[in-house]
Amino acid sequence: MECGDPVEQVAIRPGMSVNELVVQLSRAGAYNGGALGRAADICERMLRDPEVTKFFGLAGAMVPAGMGAIVSDLIAAGHIDILVSTGANLTHDIIEALGCRHYHGSAVCSDTDLRDEEINRIYDVFLPSDAFIVFEEFIQESLSLLDPGATYPICELLSLLGRRLGRGILATAAQNGVPVFCPAVADSMIGLQCWLYSQTGKISVDAFLDMKALLDICFSAKRAGALLVGGGVPKNFIFQGMLMTPNGFSYAVQLTGDRPDLGGLSGATLDEARSWGKVSKEAAAVTVYGDATITLPVLVAAVMERMAK
Amino acid sequence: MECGDPVEQVAIRPGMSVNELVVQLSRAGAYNGGALGRAADICERMLRDPEVTKFFGLAGAMVPAGMGAIVSDLIAAGHIDILVSTGANLTHDIIEALGCRHYHGSAVCSDTDLRDEEINRIYDVFLPSDAFIVFEEFIQESLSLLDPGATYPICELLSLLGRRLGRGILATAAQNGVPVFCPAVADSMIGLQCWLYSQTGKISVDAFLDMKALLDICFSAKRAGALLVGGGVPKNFIFQGMLMTPNGFSYAVQLTGDRPDLGGLSGATLDEARSWGKVSKEAAAVTVYGDATITLPVLVAAVMERMAK
Amino acid sequence: MECGDPVEQVAIRPGMSVNELVVQLSRAGAYNGGALGRAADICERMLRDPEVTKFFGLAGAMVPAGMGAIVSDLIAAGHIDILVSTGANLTHDIIEALGCRHYHGSAVCSDTDLRDEEINRIYDVFLPSDAFIVFEEFIQESLSLLDPGATYPICELLSLLGRRLGRGILATAAQNGVPVFCPAVADSMIGLQCWLYSQTGKISVDAFLDMKALLDICFSAKRAGALLVGGGVPKNFIFQGMLMTPNGFSYAVQLTGDRPDLGGLSGATLDEARSWGKVSKEAAAVTVYGDATITLPVLVAAVMERMAK
Amino acid sequence: MECGDPVEQVAIRPGMSVNELVVQLSRAGAYNGGALGRAADICERMLRDPEVTKFFGLAGAMVPAGMGAIVSDLIAAGHIDILVSTGANLTHDIIEALGCRHYHGSAVCSDTDLRDEEINRIYDVFLPSDAFIVFEEFIQESLSLLDPGATYPICELLSLLGRRLGRGILATAAQNGVPVFCPAVADSMIGLQCWLYSQTGKISVDAFLDMKALLDICFSAKRAGALLVGGGVPKNFIFQGMLMTPNGFSYAVQLTGDRPDLGGLSGATLDEARSWGKVSKEAAAVTVYGDATITLPVLVAAVMERMAK
Repeated sequence: MECGDPVEQVAIRPGMSVNELVVQLSRAGAYNGGALGRAADICERMLRDPEVTKFFGLAGAMVPAGMGAIVSDLIAAGHIDILVSTGANLTHDIIEALGCRHYHGSAVCSDTDLRDEEINRIYDVFLPSDAFIVFEEFIQESLSLLDPGATYPICELLSLLGRRLGRGILATAAQNGVPVFCPAVADSMIGLQCWLYSQTGKISVDAFLDMKALLDICFSAKRAGALLVGGGVPKNFIFQGMLMTPNGFSYAVQLTGDRPDLGGLSGATLDEARSWGKVSKEAAAVTVYGDATITLPVLVAAVMERMAK
Repeated sequence: MECGDPVEQVAIRPGMSVNELVVQLSRAGAYNGGALGRAADICERMLRDPEVTKFFGLAGAMVPAGMGAIVSDLIAAGHIDILVSTGANLTHDIIEALGCRHYHGSAVCSDTDLRDEEINRIYDVFLPSDAFIVFEEFIQESLSLLDPGATYPICELLSLLGRRLGRGILATAAQNGVPVFCPAVADSMIGLQCWLYSQTGKISVDAFLDMKALLDICFSAKRAGALLVGGGVPKNFIFQGMLMTPNGFSYAVQLTGDRPDLGGLSGATLDEARSWGKVSKEAAAVTVYGDATITLPVLVAAVMERMAK
Repeated sequence: MECGDPVEQVAIRPGMSVNELVVQLSRAGAYNGGALGRAADICERMLRDPEVTKFFGLAGAMVPAGMGAIVSDLIAAGHIDILVSTGANLTHDIIEALGCRHYHGSAVCSDTDLRDEEINRIYDVFLPSDAFIVFEEFIQESLSLLDPGATYPICELLSLLGRRLGRGILATAAQNGVPVFCPAVADSMIGLQCWLYSQTGKISVDAFLDMKALLDICFSAKRAGALLVGGGVPKNFIFQGMLMTPNGFSYAVQLTGDRPDLGGLSGATLDEARSWGKVSKEAAAVTVYGDATITLPVLVAAVMERMAK
Repeated sequence: MECGDPVEQVAIRPGMSVNELVVQLSRAGAYNGGALGRAADICERMLRDPEVTKFFGLAGAMVPAGMGAIVSDLIAAGHIDILVSTGANLTHDIIEALGCRHYHGSAVCSDTDLRDEEINRIYDVFLPSDAFIVFEEFIQESLSLLDPGATYPICELLSLLGRRLGRGILATAAQNGVPVFCPAVADSMIGLQCWLYSQTGKISVDAFLDMKALLDICFSAKRAGALLVGGGVPKNFIFQGMLMTPNGFSYAVQLTGDRPDLGGLSGATLDEARSWGKVSKEAAAVTVYGDATITLPVLVAAVMERMAK
């Protein structure tokens, strides 16, 4: 047990850049502020490593909170090789890509009144139900383009949707050839639309075909890195891919609002992941606990500033 | 704005039953203790309603924590009509059903040492890697019994596994004809085993076929109730089923360790679900925030005591 | 690194006693359920140790939530030797002892409407402002009984109040000669009333005199044990007393809703307290994370059942 | 119920300033990121209001985490009129001012080993016990300068300490005539030192004298604003001061890692404070939930950038 560097008191300078502040947090080095500083260091190393395959996990209601453009910009800049998302984030991404909007609302309100006015609430974000009519039209039309005789992996279904959109996560991924995995797609409005389509049409999507694509990527990766926003299915799906390979992840950063002592994967530390071999014993890895609507933009702004130098 | 009943101070009596304590918490009526009291009332009403279809959502690492038998006992007693689970809980259920065990461990330890000793950690629970060898053998043998020319819904795959096991959640569900849904099964060791099998054999599992079965249940339900442990995919999948029907859930109890202000579904209040129509405007619904390894056993013990009268 | 006992699946039996359930949680042994089981074991050992001095720390808004009677019952049964409380809990204890009540309310409401109706809110508990008129009268009358020429330690001021009340924590402590410490009493309605009194009368209460009384207790204790509800000033004040003695606490149980990674004392683990010598290296100590309106009644019911045998 | 502005997707630009990022979070407007944006707006308005008296509450282990210089810099810039702190933050401030340091450590370690090496742990910060020897010498010498016949309010004791230090929070406050209140000073190493001094010397510090000074300030304030880091005694002490005046706070920003549903004051919303009249019905007020080692530096950097324009 030894003391490391001294804690430096954080000095604020008016007009300082985000990375200048994050460097200060690194020098302070304590609690989640210190962890955020280390996360920026690990992300920078990961992005500068020419031999790393970069995974991004997207859970939580990030797109309704305005965090979707960070993801699509990272894809466009070549900083994400494989995206794994919840179905909800992709649903809201499609809604925004189709020109519908989410709105500032309030978390303290009458939800029965909202129901009467056909406004759906996501904490303090409001989404009028109209958006789902536009969404339905788009998905139904898209599904009608599928070959009714073929069996699709989920990622190809998502790629089809992305090619038919002009902007957003799915569109940018499709434009850049970045595969988007969503193992629980059935558990989303996209899934409900597929069920609706299957009432009259024919659609065959295999639950396991994606795993072959994912595992081929895992086996061919020289080194692997992961940036995980939230936990859930994306975190586990990214990690389990590397379980089958001899090596775990070499770089891993997790931004989560959960806590470890409840035992769930979403709040589990990345050290725990070392015991399973998901993260390698020597990996650079850190968890930042907090709301990703704060930690993700700060982290990405700091790392982008470093990469621009 | 009006004051309700007065807060009664909780009186502890040595030897009191769990339900006697929960009744005291109801009379105190405050914070999560009060919510737990209301949850017991709602569960009791739900179980006494002869026309209700009862859903159970199982997320979080509950089986490794010894909470699996509560679920299988509820199934055996007829208190669960439809189970929706994460893949991880089913994986650990199979491991226990095959005679392998989870062990008391520690959350403060060297995970690299654990890796060397091939022990996997889930917070303070240890699981030796040996278990996965037994697990693999079981799953591979099970998959070889599938008709290679047929396409299966996920719930049928799980039903097959359950029929080949002697105890646990999947076994009890199979014995009682309770369907088990697991939309994200690909995101679990079961999914990895299916991929492994597909390297040499043929397996076809459709990602969306389950939804037809689920929605048929939703449409035929006179009333619906849900007990949700954790959030994640099970919570959303259960709720979205009712989205397509004219009515939302009439009874809903949620036990979660998350928090609402991060925007994610797992911590979202059930009031929020009313705005979407997932929970009906008049539904009896309550969220208890806390560790389900405490709240679930206390809730179930209290409700079972009431039902035994 | 070694595996301990196997995780036993929790078995619920209708009508089981609280302690029977807590024993089940011990055998499961995981997460906060397991911690609660260990907490019961430690409390039992502490109460059965004839040479231990027993401290109780009371933070959080416990009295408005109906948890005050648990504390006064523990005092009456001889299970608390020294109580350290926040000023708020004592304020609400006096209010209840004077016959005013807290009421069931709602956490989702208009606080400006409540303001207009002179109802004060504590999460989902309502307290009409009338209570503070009764409270003011009682405190002002009590203070007029003080010797204007004397300087009092805070605990004597509180003892005076207790002797003038018929029930509740302060009254029971006074009846049983249990000292009540409240280092931050200025930071409460009691403090405000003392200021009000000092506008026309004379009152002299020393900020540090209590420490002599506390430290005399600490130095004379053969062994010391602590049950801490919440963190805050009570936790630190109890722990710092033992800092000056050669030994730290031998038994320590903490029930807190905070989390360790924010660095604050309230969420800090009891292991952290070992590094300071507040808790001895060999002490039996455990933290249960969760809402104390659930964990405190369950813990006390289980331990009282054991003590009654 | 109406929708507000649309959620704008956050756009990251390499080299962007902290305030540019916070403005983006405002435009996204969701969850705690949106709350942080509103907090910056409220702080800016508060600092630009020439008639506001500005309170600052400091709880949590902020100085050991390198957040102390932010507070002293705010004092030096005239942005804090009254500081209310926990005793622990002032203890660590004195330690740093005396030239001792806190060090980067680890939260996963053997606390019994740390005990043997005389290193005290605060989550992942290490503080060698040596520092307390230097601290003791300073405090004992300082106390010997007090007039043994006089009775001091706590804030005068702290002012004396500040005048004898060259830097840090207490020193800067003393230099700028900013009163520092610490109602629970007995509950800290400063309190322990006062007790030690009283074993041989004479010291008289009144528990309630500060309240007169505080309430005079409250009564003379035209308008009042508060920035609260953490909850605890500082939050309540600041709020209760205004309880006695006809008006509550007009501006209030709270950065806390707690949660409201546990009922404790530290996690309580500022809306709840409106019901008590602590915060006025029309006040601009917002709570940002998260680790203050992230939210405080981001907030202050953003606001200082605006004030520099």
